[in-house]
Amino acid sequence: MSELIGAPCVILNEPQLAENIGSVARVMANFGLADLRMVRPRDGWPQERAWASASGANWPLDGARVFDTLQAACADLHRLYATTARPREVVLPIITPREAAAQLRTAAAEGLNTGLLFGGERAGLETQDIALCQAIVTIPIDPRFRSLNLAQAVAINAYEWRTADADRPPPAFREGAPPADQAMLDGLYGQLEGELEGAGFFHPPEKQPSMVRNLRAIFARALLNEQEVRTLRGVITALSKGRGRVLAKLAAKRAETEPSSDERP
Amino acid sequence: MSELIGAPCVILNEPQLAENIGSVARVMANFGLADLRMVRPRDGWPQERAWASASGANWPLDGARVFDTLQAACADLHRLYATTARPREVVLPIITPREAAAQLRTAAAEGLNTGLLFGGERAGLETQDIALCQAIVTIPIDPRFRSLNLAQAVAINAYEWRTADADRPPPAFREGAPPADQAMLDGLYGQLEGELEGAGFFHPPEKQPSMVRNLRAIFARALLNEQEVRTLRGVITALSKGRGRVLAKLAAKRAETEPSSDERP
Repeated sequence: MSELIGAPCVILNEPQLAENIGSVARVMANFGLADLRMVRPRDGWPQERAWASASGANWPLDGARVFDTLQAACADLHRLYATTARPREVVLPIITPREAAAQLRTAAAEGLNTGLLFGGERAGLETQDIALCQAIVTIPIDPRFRSLNLAQAVAINAYEWRTADADRPPPAFREGAPPADQAMLDGLYGQLEGELEGAGFFHPPEKQPSMVRNLRAIFARALLNEQEVRTLRGVITALSKGRGRVLAKLAAKRAETEPSSDERP
Repeated sequence: MSELIGAPCVILNEPQLAENIGSVARVMANFGLADLRMVRPRDGWPQERAWASASGANWPLDGARVFDTLQAACADLHRLYATTARPREVVLPIITPREAAAQLRTAAAEGLNTGLLFGGERAGLETQDIALCQAIVTIPIDPRFRSLNLAQAVAINAYEWRTADADRPPPAFREGAPPADQAMLDGLYGQLEGELEGAGFFHPPEKQPSMVRNLRAIFARALLNEQEVRTLRGVITALSKGRGRVLAKLAAKRAETEPSSDERP
């Protein structure tokens, strides 16, 4: 059994039942995880029933943090993997819990912050949440009965994390800038989507959400480093300002060469 | 994903909470298991709350069978693995859930009946129960928090069963008699222990339980085939009858050579 330094955090997105949150804390403790985060728990926080169902695994609950948005919950993370049985139209790698555990251990060994994301009991994860992740983890459950309890989903992943082989050769030296965390990516997304919106890119408007998440998933799975994010942001700035300049030039040219309509006879 | 023919049964020994039985049924269904057996469920059977907590995974509950003894519950099995976090003084192989899954799949591929045994919520498994098994499965939980929920323990094993690689080369042809099931072993144990008790072997009497389970564990882990059980039973018969003959001869010899006390002057 290897050291559990760099264990992933567990993010519950819109969890519903306090009992399930307590059960999640219990399995986290079973497998050496401690950092529990929640996005908009349905019934607020804290809730006594969570502690009652944790069987004494109080520390993940005592230290749990609540966030208004998933972006805020994962701002410091470099790798976030979404566990869902229903991968939708997001283009991300789909991996097993075992592969996820190995990849997260490797990332942790490189000093990166990692997390596992789980949806609420009823709704699961929205595509826009998944699009913030670097991969989709799919537990190989029987297609005839897909209703997996939230704590069980956490347990399978936590178990795989704990048993994952960390005796791998040290990761290749990563040259250059450190990997971007989610907060940096969020800044990139905000800039890109703002510029695209101003440019009328999102057409028809009802397609904007799916277009946004498809774009985000591209960058999410690219495992960008900080320098690359800065470069991309420079690219967006250059393109959008350039477009502005082009438009300005075109406007100027038109003004020079075309008579204004009110000058016509 | 391979075919799930030959999936192990799940035996719950003295389970307490109906909710946990329902949760066990749910994870069994998640991972393609269906054969649920219980030994002396504390609150009787059936119990509505089990169905209520199975989230629709009714079929393992509908088909569940209840037994008075573990021996009866596992009579048709050839391989029974006990999951316990606390292996006691029974000399059995201690393996991981992953190793267990691979071994059980191999056994199933040979046509053997397999099972996973879990203790009740509070007491776990008694040593005498473990001694009926061919191996002990230990889930690598954090020693700082060993309180693993029953359904979680089933989930880890069922998950490993489902993901175990069945694309292994076909097992070597097993010559000779088919493997003995638990009922045959139980007959062997009964004969052996009866003879030993008659011979005054269990001394001091308070050590009988531990002596019995140590003997059983030896034969349990030997993976005996039917012919070997018959041979061993013949051995026991021969030894005990032989002892009877020796005792009879000794008695006869004494009667011949020693004068009886009331014949003395």
